[in-house]
Amino acid sequence: MGYNILIAQGGGPTAVINCSLQGAVEAARASGKVDKIYAARFGAEGILKGDLIDLTDVPASTIAALSHTPASAIGSCRRKLGEADYPTVLETLRKYEIGGFFYNGGNDSMDTCNKVSALAQREGLDINVIGIPKTMDNDLVLTDHCPGFGSAARYAAISASELALDASGLPIHVVVLELMGREAGWVTAASALAAKLTDCRVLTYLPEVPVDEEKMLQDIEREYAKGLGLIVTVSEGICGLDGKPLADTGIVDGFGHTVPGGTAQHVSDNIIKKLGIKSRAEKPGLLGRASIPYASQVDRREAYEVGEYAVNAALRGETGKMVAIEAVREPEYVSSMSLVPLEKVANAEKKFPVEWIVDTNKISDKFFDYALPLMGGGLPSYAKLR
Amino acid sequence: MGYNILIAQGGGPTAVINCSLQGAVEAARASGKVDKIYAARFGAEGILKGDLIDLTDVPASTIAALSHTPASAIGSCRRKLGEADYPTVLETLRKYEIGGFFYNGGNDSMDTCNKVSALAQREGLDINVIGIPKTMDNDLVLTDHCPGFGSAARYAAISASELALDASGLPIHVVVLELMGREAGWVTAASALAAKLTDCRVLTYLPEVPVDEEKMLQDIEREYAKGLGLIVTVSEGICGLDGKPLADTGIVDGFGHTVPGGTAQHVSDNIIKKLGIKSRAEKPGLLGRASIPYASQVDRREAYEVGEYAVNAALRGETGKMVAIEAVREPEYVSSMSLVPLEKVANAEKKFPVEWIVDTNKISDKFFDYALPLMGGGLPSYAKLR
Repeated sequence: MGYNILIAQGGGPTAVINCSLQGAVEAARASGKVDKIYAARFGAEGILKGDLIDLTDVPASTIAALSHTPASAIGSCRRKLGEADYPTVLETLRKYEIGGFFYNGGNDSMDTCNKVSALAQREGLDINVIGIPKTMDNDLVLTDHCPGFGSAARYAAISASELALDASGLPIHVVVLELMGREAGWVTAASALAAKLTDCRVLTYLPEVPVDEEKMLQDIEREYAKGLGLIVTVSEGICGLDGKPLADTGIVDGFGHTVPGGTAQHVSDNIIKKLGIKSRAEKPGLLGRASIPYASQVDRREAYEVGEYAVNAALRGETGKMVAIEAVREPEYVSSMSLVPLEKVANAEKKFPVEWIVDTNKISDKFFDYALPLMGGGLPSYAKLR
Repeated sequence: MGYNILIAQGGGPTAVINCSLQGAVEAARASGKVDKIYAARFGAEGILKGDLIDLTDVPASTIAALSHTPASAIGSCRRKLGEADYPTVLETLRKYEIGGFFYNGGNDSMDTCNKVSALAQREGLDINVIGIPKTMDNDLVLTDHCPGFGSAARYAAISASELALDASGLPIHVVVLELMGREAGWVTAASALAAKLTDCRVLTYLPEVPVDEEKMLQDIEREYAKGLGLIVTVSEGICGLDGKPLADTGIVDGFGHTVPGGTAQHVSDNIIKKLGIKSRAEKPGLLGRASIPYASQVDRREAYEVGEYAVNAALRGETGKMVAIEAVREPEYVSSMSLVPLEKVANAEKKFPVEWIVDTNKISDKFFDYALPLMGGGLPSYAKLR
């Protein structure tokens, strides 16, 4: 009997999630030890329905095209697996004679992965369960960083810089930029790079520090008055002093999270109404996790490697683990892969260090020491003539 | 006495406006006939204040960096020049002994340019006045297209495709994407390319056709039910059957235009409230005109060439003209520069041909025959596995 594998993608996608799929498929093919390569169509939903895509004979050129295909190429979902689902999950794993099971996702997916691993052991299934990390939010613990973060950070940094050039070259308004990140400010922090790449003033607000809106408006008024242009970058999930989001959509997602949104518009409206300064709000939203032209080459490579490493780990008998990234930054950036126990990852969250937030609205160089290598090389250098 | 030139940028910038500045400066240097190269700091405002940047001795490497510097590197403004300003304009032109005057902008800037040209003739100034076209809106007449459009169109097309992949890989909501374009739908039309590059359903609404919101919602409900994912792309300026914008910010800009905005959010809110379907709105806004990674190589080259051509035209004695682009698309795309009278450009607007809008929400291939060459080569080809 052959060794079949099943790969699923869970939760929100990233620009590089399919690089991990590519890495896993190419490693499986290269090993010569894998019979059938299955992917769950739309994540947990495909597992529950037994609706799998057979990737075994998909042409190598199509698999290679995954490297520049953003979002979930095999489909993802926000469906959480609960106790009641386990018999159905087992049925699919047995039916397709799955020997290696890979779940590519963030916190919620690692929790699922951990439960499937425990279930398999309890039921005596001979199956290797490995979690493949993915989240632009960068909030998984026990890994230096998460695939997907570097690209989202690069998007935030360069987009904010381009917006800063626009706002300082035609300084008729304060531009407020909303970036993704509900509880963790990792991505939005990267937007503060605009203060280094341009002469524009930049104020950055993360969800880790409650926002005093009165002080925020004072800071905006003062910085705008300097006449160099001003952009304000905010995480979608920033909260006021009362701990409540400045704005939200009133929508609750499949994992029970309230979907934040309208934060930049809220700040922009206040700038107009309370300061009498023109303002506009921009919200690229999902574009921040889907952009291939802004993707980080380092992130793409590492996303590939976590997928590849996961399959090779399963093939050498590992189970109940998540692939983690270890990184050394001096004298130059080098990363390598390792394994950490899924149970230690499943219910923990890595917060942005509050000590990297300076005076509530600036980001410490310590963050950039950490994040710049992940954003990849070739950051822009702009002409300054004014 | 030497021949001095003055270049000004007007109105909203583009991703490639500084390529035109680079072309003009490098042509002036190469000619050996230009003594001083000045740029107006913040457009008309710099001209009125006599606040010029001397670019004569700026290093060649800085001028070269203009090719990948978005937004207005010398500063722009939305200040319109009126009769009362002319004595001050003349003063600046005389003070700096300007022999060649170049205004890089859209409709409003060409109007200014035309008036300065007439003024100079009336006052007996020996000055060559040449307009350099620029507008992402692509609404200048007598030119095949406008520098800035190809890059904005490429941004719209690829961003919409990336969003479509996100929305179809995790089909939990309809995603509404708002793109720039107040009265002309040129840029938003390009977003319909997502229907060709992905399997996602795409509905596109331009300002040229009044929107029947009831029918819009019916179309959205029907297309979403197909289960392939759905994105709705809208110009910021789309209007209802009553001719009024679906939404606007209530803000009036320096040229007296009401700033539209909130259009995608309005549509998204209706999808949630009236159809009971989850939805989210994205608005990259100014990012759509400022993105270098999405810029079109063809657009960059042509933006350079219009600047270069303008200076050479002035040096051979031309005045009162705008540089126009002539293009041939078969058997392959080739463009060349020519001159058209400023007075014929100044008060005209090129609308998107309504016959290219099919069934109110799809875009004819005739548009893509026109626009694809301008977006540059190398459009993405994505892996399709589902």
